[in-house]
Amino acid sequence: MKYLHTMVRVTDPEASLRFYRDALGLELIRQMDNPGGRFSLYFLAAPGQPEAQVELTHNWDPEAYTGGRNFGHLAYAVDDIYATCARLQAHGVTINRPPRDGHMAFVRSPDGISIELLQAGRPLPPAEPWASMPNTGSW
Amino acid sequence: MKYLHTMVRVTDPEASLRFYRDALGLELIRQMDNPGGRFSLYFLAAPGQPEAQVELTHNWDPEAYTGGRNFGHLAYAVDDIYATCARLQAHGVTINRPPRDGHMAFVRSPDGISIELLQAGRPLPPAEPWASMPNTGSW
Repeated sequence: MKYLHTMVRVTDPEASLRFYRDALGLELIRQMDNPGGRFSLYFLAAPGQPEAQVELTHNWDPEAYTGGRNFGHLAYAVDDIYATCARLQAHGVTINRPPRDGHMAFVRSPDGISIELLQAGRPLPPAEPWASMPNTGSW
Repeated sequence: MKYLHTMVRVTDPEASLRFYRDALGLELIRQMDNPGGRFSLYFLAAPGQPEAQVELTHNWDPEAYTGGRNFGHLAYAVDDIYATCARLQAHGVTINRPPRDGHMAFVRSPDGISIELLQAGRPLPPAEPWASMPNTGSW
């Protein structure tokens, strides 16, 4: 057997592509529109790792998506957690759990999906503005 | 960057290991208990694909987990969708969306996480008992 993807539902595909692709850094691998079923799918993955995808499902008929506690988060390792968090911030994303320790951060997608970021390899030395940044909300 | 895992919370680790490992067919790669934080973690992955994991978080202090609509499902390709569904059934798992088409099935974990199963390659020829099995519940 083989892992294919984690599917999440999104209300606004443009906002979601800004988050998952432009801010987080995933690549858009494939997109399909299904006018009959009134939905669109967007498959993204980390560069060089197309076998582990996140599938964004956009149902054209609006629905407000809330979260539940049984699902926790999606986790990605990143090469420079400070650079990733700075890019997320530049796209208007709140860093709910800043990487004060140079190791771990949490943000949320526009639809409240929690994303864990982990510094690849050893933690980075503590650095501002992250080291003194408080938590915001929950994640 | 690199995909690491999807984390889900579980109320009963034994029931969850029966589902994810014994019935679904994932391998338990790593387990850790954190008595200070009163939680245990279980990392599982498809055989031969340790880089795409599912992390089960068991908080020792009981909490009932419900789902939300923003998270959809985890998807796996399987070599024989009928054999996988038969094994799940033998472990008491309801096949919510039976593989009537030899291509796709859905089940739920003990905590309501939706799992999509897709036949690898071409669909199998329709076969009983799946071909005439109705849907059960939602997924």
